[in-house]
Parts: sequence; structure tokens; C-alpha cells
Amino acid sequence: MGRSFASDNNTPVHPKIMQAIIEANKEDFVSYGDDPYTRRAEELLRHHFGAEAHPFLVFTGTAANVLGLSAVLSPYHAVIAPATSHINVDECGALENITGSKLLTVPTTDGKLTPSQAAPFLHALGVEHHAQPRVISITQPTELGTVYSQAEIKELAVFAHDNGLYLHMDGARLANAAAFLHTSLKDITADAGVDILSFGGTKNGMMFGESVILFSKKAASSFKYIRKQGMQLGSKMRYLAAQFIAYLNDHLWLKNAEHANTMARILAEKAALLPGAEIFQPVETNGVFLRLPHKAIKPLQEKSFFYVWDEEAGEVRWMTSYDTTEKDIDEFIAEARAVLQEIHEGH
Amino acid sequence: MGRSFASDNNTPVHPKIMQAIIEANKEDFVSYGDDPYTRRAEELLRHHFGAEAHPFLVFTGTAANVLGLSAVLSPYHAVIAPATSHINVDECGALENITGSKLLTVPTTDGKLTPSQAAPFLHALGVEHHAQPRVISITQPTELGTVYSQAEIKELAVFAHDNGLYLHMDGARLANAAAFLHTSLKDITADAGVDILSFGGTKNGMMFGESVILFSKKAASSFKYIRKQGMQLGSKMRYLAAQFIAYLNDHLWLKNAEHANTMARILAEKAALLPGAEIFQPVETNGVFLRLPHKAIKPLQEKSFFYVWDEEAGEVRWMTSYDTTEKDIDEFIAEARAVLQEIHEGH
Amino acid sequence: MGRSFASDNNTPVHPKIMQAIIEANKEDFVSYGDDPYTRRAEELLRHHFGAEAHPFLVFTGTAANVLGLSAVLSPYHAVIAPATSHINVDECGALENITGSKLLTVPTTDGKLTPSQAAPFLHALGVEHHAQPRVISITQPTELGTVYSQAEIKELAVFAHDNGLYLHMDGARLANAAAFLHTSLKDITADAGVDILSFGGTKNGMMFGESVILFSKKAASSFKYIRKQGMQLGSKMRYLAAQFIAYLNDHLWLKNAEHANTMARILAEKAALLPGAEIFQPVETNGVFLRLPHKAIKPLQEKSFFYVWDEEAGEVRWMTSYDTTEKDIDEFIAEARAVLQEIHEGH
Amino acid sequence: MGRSFASDNNTPVHPKIMQAIIEANKEDFVSYGDDPYTRRAEELLRHHFGAEAHPFLVFTGTAANVLGLSAVLSPYHAVIAPATSHINVDECGALENITGSKLLTVPTTDGKLTPSQAAPFLHALGVEHHAQPRVISITQPTELGTVYSQAEIKELAVFAHDNGLYLHMDGARLANAAAFLHTSLKDITADAGVDILSFGGTKNGMMFGESVILFSKKAASSFKYIRKQGMQLGSKMRYLAAQFIAYLNDHLWLKNAEHANTMARILAEKAALLPGAEIFQPVETNGVFLRLPHKAIKPLQEKSFFYVWDEEAGEVRWMTSYDTTEKDIDEFIAEARAVLQEIHEGH
Repeated sequence: MGRSFASDNNTPVHPKIMQAIIEANKEDFVSYGDDPYTRRAEELLRHHFGAEAHPFLVFTGTAANVLGLSAVLSPYHAVIAPATSHINVDECGALENITGSKLLTVPTTDGKLTPSQAAPFLHALGVEHHAQPRVISITQPTELGTVYSQAEIKELAVFAHDNGLYLHMDGARLANAAAFLHTSLKDITADAGVDILSFGGTKNGMMFGESVILFSKKAASSFKYIRKQGMQLGSKMRYLAAQFIAYLNDHLWLKNAEHANTMARILAEKAALLPGAEIFQPVETNGVFLRLPHKAIKPLQEKSFFYVWDEEAGEVRWMTSYDTTEKDIDEFIAEARAVLQEIHEGH
Repeated sequence: MGRSFASDNNTPVHPKIMQAIIEANKEDFVSYGDDPYTRRAEELLRHHFGAEAHPFLVFTGTAANVLGLSAVLSPYHAVIAPATSHINVDECGALENITGSKLLTVPTTDGKLTPSQAAPFLHALGVEHHAQPRVISITQPTELGTVYSQAEIKELAVFAHDNGLYLHMDGARLANAAAFLHTSLKDITADAGVDILSFGGTKNGMMFGESVILFSKKAASSFKYIRKQGMQLGSKMRYLAAQFIAYLNDHLWLKNAEHANTMARILAEKAALLPGAEIFQPVETNGVFLRLPHKAIKPLQEKSFFYVWDEEAGEVRWMTSYDTTEKDIDEFIAEARAVLQEIHEGH
Repeated sequence: MGRSFASDNNTPVHPKIMQAIIEANKEDFVSYGDDPYTRRAEELLRHHFGAEAHPFLVFTGTAANVLGLSAVLSPYHAVIAPATSHINVDECGALENITGSKLLTVPTTDGKLTPSQAAPFLHALGVEHHAQPRVISITQPTELGTVYSQAEIKELAVFAHDNGLYLHMDGARLANAAAFLHTSLKDITADAGVDILSFGGTKNGMMFGESVILFSKKAASSFKYIRKQGMQLGSKMRYLAAQFIAYLNDHLWLKNAEHANTMARILAEKAALLPGAEIFQPVETNGVFLRLPHKAIKPLQEKSFFYVWDEEAGEVRWMTSYDTTEKDIDEFIAEARAVLQEIHEGH
Repeated sequence: MGRSFASDNNTPVHPKIMQAIIEANKEDFVSYGDDPYTRRAEELLRHHFGAEAHPFLVFTGTAANVLGLSAVLSPYHAVIAPATSHINVDECGALENITGSKLLTVPTTDGKLTPSQAAPFLHALGVEHHAQPRVISITQPTELGTVYSQAEIKELAVFAHDNGLYLHMDGARLANAAAFLHTSLKDITADAGVDILSFGGTKNGMMFGESVILFSKKAASSFKYIRKQGMQLGSKMRYLAAQFIAYLNDHLWLKNAEHANTMARILAEKAALLPGAEIFQPVETNGVFLRLPHKAIKPLQEKSFFYVWDEEAGEVRWMTSYDTTEKDIDEFIAEARAVLQEIHEGH
């Protein structure tokens, strides 16, 4: 099977990360995280996110989001998020089931939330008939590949904090946002006022493994119970930790993300020239969102699978990865051109 | 305190219902519903809703909605409902917490849902990343006072059933809808394809007491556990049952609803003439929805409290009840006129 | 139907309480508790339980227990309680479902818990694999009719507080315990260190209505959301409140409880003389627990229903109420004697 | 760090399993399990557990237990299990929180449940006040290392099915039980009447990875949603699958388990001769349970960490693994002897 543009989680594990796993496989270690690999991974996460960061390793991105949010939610709380957010659309209702809390969603054009969009929900504060807004949750980069500037995040954080709310960030692809903005990971999280972060690795070269980073000692104090009860405490934790060590060393996270972003720009440039294709989101990270003629979608998926974003609108998503090559792009674009031209001529 | 237009739950208990409570207070009866009053109330509910109706008495409308829906929901399910629905807005997130399920909400202009608005959510069916739509929930009459015709309900039921979904109806004010449509209660529930019904009494003359009516034997078979675990099994059930007996006898439910509806029409006619007031929903049941100048709202609330429906838009709700009099209306309208004129002249 | 010894919730409403309900039925009042009846009931509850008491009215005893406990529980917490406790046995698993928390149960001989029985569970504290003990929950009087002394409650409270836990009391029949101990309600709750109390009325003459009393401002601050989301916010709250006003005025709570306790002592004296009957718990409040020959139970239940406490052991429960008469007792004892003698002679 | 007797999850990954992971790391594959590795692992699981087996891969043992049970539980249900069960003691209350269901626990001497111990709970069936028993859950081998015979499992399955209940088996170490009994995996699961199985690999040489095996098509039909909502759907599923392929090929599961069991027998023989040590459970699989003088426990843990099983009783657990050597045993026994003799002489 050739490289796919379906998702950045179709890739194999990056060789340096695989090497780290192999090297961690030498002897016995105490389980559940009381081992030197986990301690080192936590150190590196604090190095990148600041001394106030309390990191916890988990297996999946859904777990990172839902359990991270659990740290500050009671069941009568609500989370304000863009309608496109992964927690709303792609986690099978895990947030509602695991936390009991409500999602209050906002339609957006680009996946990005603004304080003024969140503001009307705050009328509910103090009124017992309504779930109580407690967290604003954003995705960086968004599910549409767009990126919040540091200033935009700060503005949301100030708005949240001024109203007694927390700011959560789903950073499943945070590296791609930092690569786009030329900032550190800390600039757009801790330093921008984020309280709870999901920092992912699986989509950028890891085998499995995400982290919850809590920037509040109080929230962190009971998180070990939330992780265990949330069925996410790995016994052989070192294999999660070893991946994060390799990922955070030598800027591997950044190199991988920069490569994926670059490939997306190239893909977008070529896709823009395809007959009948229209790119409808700025290409800031590693996703290209475009409208295709409805008739073209199925034939092209059969050649190389990708996800449809909006059935009615004919919107699709093409993703690049740390291992995408220009040759992959050229082959894929050639296939797409063939399909689109055939349809065009069919009219 | 004079009669209020804040809500139809500000009223005292209707004298006939109070009389029924007093008469039920004569001797010992077995608790938890194994008594002749409960059996009689259930018979009457089956008389009104059909032999396939399985009725269960509970204390609050929120409980009726949430527990009724529980009967067919697993946590990975979702409920499609208008954004204005009571289960979405006014139950403090009880549905999400008690059932674990997700709400998928649809913005509407009049509180009414159509099959074509629900249809896009069905792309999720069969895809594990998404909560699985399981129920369409409507309110009859809606939270905006509008009424679905029997044909509209049937169309939603057919759409739901064709796609393997159930149709739930929040009938907290069902009597008012039946009064408007000149139909029986059964015409717009069992005979229109409703699977799960909340049938309320508190807003139409009862002291407390709502009912869950399940039109499926299977869903009903385990509901007694859901009610008990849902903290809604009354020990002295007869006092719930006695109210329903009085309510369903001699068309009390209908007479009360007709009166409230008539009062709303009169209120609306007079409100329409107020300077600066604009009625923005058809007045089909016992609520009048109108826009007022922002400045007028607080002073008028201070004279006679009512709820603001939309802060930003200056939309408010005035409700009539089974005991509203024309005199109440005239006094209230006079107060409103005074406030509005003062504001008008202030400009 | 004659008066039953099945449960103290088979009784009608006490006339003074019914009168209070009727008197509350005169005019419109704002709903959801913002009315003078609710304010007066809350005042009286503070009068009886102390200025630090934060009272909230709900409909059922299960709700009072479960929602009261919710005020201090996160899902990774556990509640230590006697195995016989109502929250463990008779609430259809509501605690686990509504709070997500775990019950850690202790077998006892008399329904009463001691610190030394709770102590082994505290090894779990701080260890992420185990649900974290957070509350000790006791029932006063116990489900076996026995009563904790003030000193015993204090000892449990000190033990709980020393270990960072709360003390919860299920006081569905608290009046009967106070009557037995000749103490005030406050002596054995606030003054003994209880943090969360369910104070019931339905089993002692009310129509419906229980209260959650929180002795912590912090726990109380969010309880209004817990009550609403817990589907227990009554709209016409005054009818709950009016009952509590009548119940707490003029020592009605105490007179009713004293009467029920006295009747239980008389019943026990007479039951002790029945052939083959053996009373196995001290009769301190209004329940008589006795062992009967297995063969006698069904025939006697058919004459006058009561609950079997332990099928295997042939243990049954007979309850007296505020309205039990000596004539009721004599008739019931005569029936029991007839059944037991027939069985005895059958051997 | 030397090899530990703390737990069989302290080991590194078995070389053959690591090799399989490396070989799976060659190219892109569709995520979420639609890949040839996952299909092959599922085939092999059906080969070992029968054509009626519906396997699902997850990350942790807690997830396998809790989500597997979710497949047949509604919140008003209860699970009957030995008090020592992992779901009761070691999963931080995950079952209660994730499913809402209640655990009904039975004290045992050897971790094994019998039908007669479960029977008294069945009085609850049909009575709305009580959580409804729905599943009997056993662990094979038990948390005390003891093993149910096929006949014992069959007897429990017949008892469960006759009463409308399911039989669940926590098989985190199922391989060790099969090795002890000289049976196939199927003999003591599908063929003995087990309905839901957790089949683990992490404790027997895998990196991470457990499986839920459902022997009911109906339960399996919605499990994909339960797994995703349960935050256990791995995107790069092939790395879970590749491990199972290696584990199930060439009897690796059996060879590893036989070795661990043999080492435990040798450890037990030598431990039995230690001064003051008393083995209190039959050593049937890879755990040795023994009582030690209280004073000896801490000094010995400091030399080589292991878990205390019962603080009060001075009971500890020593586990062997697929990679334990006789040399490890001899070193550990020598350390233990030194500590115990010193204490003995101290008296």
C-alpha cells in the first residue's frame, strides 16, 4: 500500500522513536510509571512546557482530551467549544459519558473560536436551570488545519479566566501549529494562558501515546486517580515514556511537523490547479481542505482513501505526514487529475 | 402577590385536584404504587393514550424527559433535538449526566424540527467515531408555544422509524397543544407514532406530578428500575395518582388548557397594540413571545416578573395559566403600557 | 384496608400537614423555591439544625442520600457504609450510577458502623489503583432500628475528619432516633460532627418531601445545580416547604416519632410472647425485627403484608407509624398468634 | 535493576513480540483496525477461542474488563464477583463509574466463587428497589493464583444462564491457567460457557495490549462504539495486533506461561523453607502468596520490591514471569533468608 493522504495516523513509527522503544526493552522496571524513562519523559515535558507543567502519559487522544477536561469538570458543568471540535464530533460522545458534562457548541467558518462567540453562553452562570460553563476548549491547530496566533489564545485565556472558566487546548497536532507560528511549544500553551493541554505524538511519528499537561497543581493533585479510573494507566509505562523522550529530543517533534506542513503547502499548490477543485481553508499546517465535484469523490477514494468532511457540501480533507514525499504528492495529484478530467469531460 | 405571567407553574393547585388529594388521605395503603389510586390513574392514562401505553408516574418534568429517554439510550447514543428544547437548555445537563448520551441540536426559527433538519446527523450511523443517533426528541407544544400538526408528527415518526430511531415527545404542556388542535391526546401521540412521551400536569393545575408514557412493551419492561435508580419512585404514590385521576376525569385537563390558551390569545391581542412591542411567534398555546425595547424589560419585570428569552435580542415570554383572568391581563397590560410609554417618551 | 405494619410509609398524611398544604394553596407564587413558604421552611430547618445548616428540599429519600453525597464526591471516590445501609441495598444502585463512586461495605450485626471497621479501607488512600475513601455514611436510626449515641457519632466524625473524610448521615427517620435519645435534632447531627444529612419527613407523617442539609458552605455553594441536574427541583416548591413548616412547628416531628416508638415497644412486648418468634434486634425506634418459622411468613403476610428482611434466616420487619393504635397492634398480634399456633400444632 | 518478583508486568517485551512490532513498522496502513495485521490477529483469536468469538483489541486490562462488561450492563444492573476481584479492588472504581452498575461482592478464602455464594443475591431479581444482578464475574486464574477447573466454570455458567445472567471472565493471566490445567484456551472459556472474556497479554510478554472477546453476536454488534467512547480505540492498531499475532503463533503464550508457572513452583518450594514464612494459597499459576512476620516485610521490600496483599495479616504476593530465572529465585530467596533470620534472631 502506498502512502495515503487519509490521515497522519496512517504512518509507521519514526525510526528514531522505534529505536528508543527497542532500547527501553532491556530489563525489568517497576510498572505504572515509577521508572527512569517516565521520569525523564516528564522532565523533558516540563522543559518544553515550563516548570508549572504537570504531565501525565496516556494511550489515546480521546483519553487525553476527556480525562484532561475531567480534572476540572463536575457533571453540572459545560464545555464551550467550536462545533467542529474533535471532542464534539469524533469521540463518540466520550466527554458527555465520562464526565457527565454538557458540550455547548459554536458554529465557525474556520474552526476557530472567539471570545464574542463564547460570551452568550455566560448568561447561564449562576442559574440552576442551565449547565454551568466551566471550560472553553479549543483545538490548536483546528480540525480545519487553521492556527490560532499566540495573541488569539491569550485573548481567549483572559476572557475565560475573567469569567471563572478554564482554557483547554486539544493539541493532538500542536507541533504543527508551533512549526507554522515559529514559536516554542510553551509560547502557545503555558505562556498564552492554557490551563489544560492534550499534547499528542501519535499523529507525528509515535506508535501510540499522548499526554495530558495540567498547568494547575490543584487539578494535577487528583489526576492519577482520574487516569487510572479512566482505564489509561499503562503498566509498562516506559514504552510510552521512551517515545516521548525520542520525540522531544533533538527537535524531532519540530522537524517532523515542519516536513508535514511543507508537504501540505506543496500538495495545496498542486491541488489548486486541479479542474473543479477549490481549496476552502488556508493551508497553515498539514491538512488541505477542498471542495470537489460530488461525482469525483468516490472514484478518487477508491484509488487512494481519504475522508469526506461534509457530504452535502462535497468537502474533503487531505492530510500530509512526517513521511510524505513529493513523489507521493505527484502520484496522488496525477490520480486526482485523471479522475477530475474524466468527470469534467463527461459533462 | 397578584397573578403572574412568568410561568404556568406559579399557579396554585386546581380545586378539583386538591379535593382529590384530600380524599386520598383517609387510610393506609401499600407504598410504591401498589394501591388502587395508582391502578386507576394508570387505567385512565391507558384510556387517553391507548392500550399500548405503559404509564409511570414521576415527580418532575425533567425526570419525565430524562428517564423516559433513558429507556432506549445507551451512553454511545445521541438524541437529535431543536436547540430550544427543554432537555437542551433548561435541565442543567441532566440528559448528558444521567444517560451519558449526547445531544445533537438544531437551530430553528419556531422551535419545530423537520426531518430534513435531522437528516444530516444520520451520516454518523454505523461510524464508531460518532455518537449514534437513537432518538428524535420534540416538544409539543414547543418551548416557543408553537404546535406540530398531527401530520408533522407523523412525518417525523416515519422518518425516525425508517432510520431505526425512536420519536420522543416532551409533552409538559401537551394538553395545550391538543386544545389548540382540537384533537384527542392520543391523536398526537400514540396515533402519530410517538414512542416515548412525557405527559405533564404541573403546568396545568396539578401540585406536582408528571408521567412517562412508553409505547413499547420492551422499553417499559425495565423502566421500574430506571425510575427507582433515577430517584423518582414516590413511596406514597397515591398522592401522585389521585391528581392524575382528577386531571383526566371530566376533561379537566382540556378545560384548563383551553382557558389558558384563550387567555394567551387575548393577552397577545392587547400586547400587539403596545408601543414598541412586537410579537414574533404565532400564539398557538399559552405563551406569548415578544420583543421589547431593552430598556423596558427590567422596569416591567420589577412590576411583575417574567422571563427573558434572549438577552441580546430583547425577547421575552409571557405565559397564561388555567387561572388567568381577563382582569389580570388588563392590569398587566396597563403596567406594560405605562412602562413602554415612559420609555418611548424618553427618547 | 386496615393499618399495616409493613412500613411507616403506608400511612396517610398527618392532618396538620395536610392543613398546611391546603393553606398554601391560595394564590400564585414564584416557582423553584423563591417563595415565602420555602424561606420559612429553611429558617425552621436552620433553627433546628443550627446556623451553619444549608437546607435543600427534595422529593425522595433516595434523592436526599444520593444528591447529598454527590456534593462531596468525585467519581474516583468511595463511600464506606454498613452493608445494611439503604444506599447500598435499597436504592437500586443509584449512588453508583449518579455519582460514579464506589461503595465499600462492612458487615455488621446491628447495622451500626465503628471506626475500627472502617479503618482497613484507609490503606487505599493515596494509591491510584483503589477508589479513594471520601465519606463515611451511617444511618440514624439504622435500617435495623438501632440508634447511635451522640458519643458514637462524634467518635465516627472525629475518625472521619482526622483522615480527611466526611461524615454523612441518612436520617430518613432521624426524628425517631432523637425521640429515643431524648436529644435535639442538632445534638446528633451538627453538634456531633455530621457534614451531610438526609432529614426525612415522609415516613413520619408527610405526603412526600425530604431534605438535604449540608453543614459546609463550600459543599452548599454548588448544590442547587446538583439538585436541578438530579431532577429534584420542584417547581411548586411551596408544597414541599409547607409540609416542613407544619412538621417542624409545635414539635409535630417529635410527637409523631415518640408515638411510633412507643407503639413499637408495645408491639415488641407482645410479639416476644408469640410461639416461635424471636426478636433479634433491640427495639429502640419504630421497627421490630424478629425471626419467625419459615412456614409462618407467607400465611401471615397474606393476612397483613410486611417485608422479609432475610429470606434464608426467616427474619422479618414490622414497623409502627405515627398513626398506629394499640387496637391495630392487638389485631395484628392476634392474627400472628393464630398463624403461629396452627404451624406449631402442625408439627 | 535485577528481575523483580513484584509483578509479571515489570518484565521487558518478549523478543519475538518485539520483532513482530518492528516488522509491522514498514509502511502506511489505514488506521483504527482496518489493516491486515488486525485482521490476522482477529483470525488467530477466533482460531483459539472458536468461531463464535468476537475479539476487540484494547490497551489496558482495566479497559478490557470494564468495557467488556459494559457490553451487557445497563446502569441498574449489578455484577456479582469475589471480593478479591481486580474489578472490585484494583481498578479505582472504574466499573461503577464507566457503567453506572453496582458490584455485589462475596468474601472467599481462595478467590474462587461458587454458585451457592452467588445465589442469595438473586432474591433481588424483579424487585425495583435493588440493582438487578446481570453478570457473574470471575478471574481465571484468580488474583490469589488459584485456578477454576473447567467443571467449576461450567457449573457457574449453567447457574448464571439458568437465572438469566451472563458469565464474565477476567483472563488477564488466562494463559497461566490453561498451562496449569493442560487445556486449550477454548476449553476453559467458550466451551465452559463464558460469555465475555478479557484475554490479556501484557503480563505474559507483550508491551501493552489486551483483548475483549465477546461470545455473543448481539453484545458484539455495538461494542465498537463502546470501545471508542471508552477511549480505547487505537489509531495505529497494527502495533496491538502484531503483538497478538506473535503471541498466539507457535504457542508463545503457552511457553511463556508454563515457564512462569514452573518458576513459581520452584520459588514456592524454596520459600516454604524460609523461617517464619507460611504459604497460604496453593501455588497453581505464577503467584506465591505467603505470610511473613510483619517486621520482615519492609526490609525485604527495600531489597526487592513486592506488594503487600493484606497489611493487617502480613500477607504478601511474589510473582514470577516468563523471564524469571532460577538464579533470580536463588538470589531473592537468599535475601529473604537473610532478612528473616536476622528478625528471628532479634527476638
